[in-house]
Amino acid sequence: MYIAIEWTSSAFRAWLMQANGTVAAEHQSLAGVNSVRDGSFEACLRSEIGAWLPQSKAILLSGMVTSRTGWVETPFAMAPAGIADMLAQAIRSDLPGLPPLYFLPGIARLSPLPDVMRGEEMSIFGLELPLPDLLVLPGAHSKWVRTDGERIVDLSTYMSGEILNLLRKDSLLSKLIPADYAPSEAAFDRGVAIARDKGALPGGVLQRLFSARSLVLFDQLKPHEISDYLSGVMIGSEIAEVLAGQPDLSSVVVLGENPVAQSYRRALHQFGIQSPVEVGSAAAGFARLIVELSA
Amino acid sequence: MYIAIEWTSSAFRAWLMQANGTVAAEHQSLAGVNSVRDGSFEACLRSEIGAWLPQSKAILLSGMVTSRTGWVETPFAMAPAGIADMLAQAIRSDLPGLPPLYFLPGIARLSPLPDVMRGEEMSIFGLELPLPDLLVLPGAHSKWVRTDGERIVDLSTYMSGEILNLLRKDSLLSKLIPADYAPSEAAFDRGVAIARDKGALPGGVLQRLFSARSLVLFDQLKPHEISDYLSGVMIGSEIAEVLAGQPDLSSVVVLGENPVAQSYRRALHQFGIQSPVEVGSAAAGFARLIVELSA
Repeated sequence: MYIAIEWTSSAFRAWLMQANGTVAAEHQSLAGVNSVRDGSFEACLRSEIGAWLPQSKAILLSGMVTSRTGWVETPFAMAPAGIADMLAQAIRSDLPGLPPLYFLPGIARLSPLPDVMRGEEMSIFGLELPLPDLLVLPGAHSKWVRTDGERIVDLSTYMSGEILNLLRKDSLLSKLIPADYAPSEAAFDRGVAIARDKGALPGGVLQRLFSARSLVLFDQLKPHEISDYLSGVMIGSEIAEVLAGQPDLSSVVVLGENPVAQSYRRALHQFGIQSPVEVGSAAAGFARLIVELSA
Repeated sequence: MYIAIEWTSSAFRAWLMQANGTVAAEHQSLAGVNSVRDGSFEACLRSEIGAWLPQSKAILLSGMVTSRTGWVETPFAMAPAGIADMLAQAIRSDLPGLPPLYFLPGIARLSPLPDVMRGEEMSIFGLELPLPDLLVLPGAHSKWVRTDGERIVDLSTYMSGEILNLLRKDSLLSKLIPADYAPSEAAFDRGVAIARDKGALPGGVLQRLFSARSLVLFDQLKPHEISDYLSGVMIGSEIAEVLAGQPDLSSVVVLGENPVAQSYRRALHQFGIQSPVEVGSAAAGFARLIVELSA
């Protein structure tokens, strides 16, 4: 048996797997890297999945646990990078009383600006082959990822989600959002439309955000619509920036089924871009690695 | 004598002026609109400048005191709007024991998206005629303003400064900025250069911000440079968005001499845009109104 661990800043998720990738058991908790005190990662590991250890041949780890603030820092595999690169560039660590630990690399590109991911690649490698040409993993820091069908060849991170959260929480605009806020798809669509319209407003997101206030001042937007309008402007602007680099874009796979992923899908539709649903599963990515490792 | 008051959210500033606009006395305090409890604006006014009242023929008020959260809400004068419009559309209020109060309008445009200012126009009207074609008033919400030499004909608000502050204060990036941060003009210039470079990176600000982290990960940017680098990316992106709508832009007057105004000037220089210095004085704008009012 093998153990696969997705250990992020805020969560611990582990799978016990057979050599063929079949999941025998799953465990998750909130014991994220940020909650581990004084580097006591081994103690945390034993406390979370100690029962699995005796029967395991190896442990694979991915996520922030392999970063500078984690247990063992791994370098990045430079794109293009696939399953074989993840294993070849993993850092093996042998500790008394534990099966060998394989700390997996993140994936990076260097040009035109450096960009990185650490953990998200497992969900991508878990998709059926050939991998889609272009994927987006929505989140506070959304990742747009290009593949050649098998390997990740390029990636780009957009902090739109974090900025949106900051604007909703602690800004001039947040003060205008009433407590009885209710979701509004129409307001979201309107924000996306504003982001798309380069004819009337040639600039980008910075030129558009203040409209969340000024439209309210002129009774053209209701205060309870501000939040979703802002979301539409932000996600729409992100898509517009992606399109600036690849204007012939016709299809993007959106990974995930959470509300943010639904918003991306809705916005892409308004841009005339198809967005097939795929639910990225880190377990499936680990399964591919384990099949390779045990071969 | 006349009294002119610039009453913003966070400050109270008043001038006692002769009919010809000469300033006889000045007073300022932190008694901003946000600090006035239960609408007690009159009491606050008397407490701040009570000694001036007996000798005054009229009081002009501008700033947030004329907004929905202020003393008397005034509508916006629609651009194009000049000195005469400010007076014509002021709301006069007569209160026992006070000279007539003139609450000045803000200025707005409606298309392609509504935009507004409330108070900043006084500094602009205080400039020598003819007014510059294009001005920027840097700040948390910078205002880009077009004039026809005498009136404000268009305005556009960018929330870049507020987003920059949020990113520096409470984000993934803020956590990377060391306490011993020191200003770096080189880092600022580098951020501006990244924002300008549409060839290598065709998108906008959302596509660039994460580089403040990824460059650090690859030792291409030092943690103490993050803050100024981010400022360069943000201000440079704002200028790039303005240029998208007027690519032949060769000169912009930057109002103010504070550090943010200096940064705008520095960034504009890198774009090859001249940026003559002007120090906007609200008092000078009020002086023009008072000369007109007393004529």
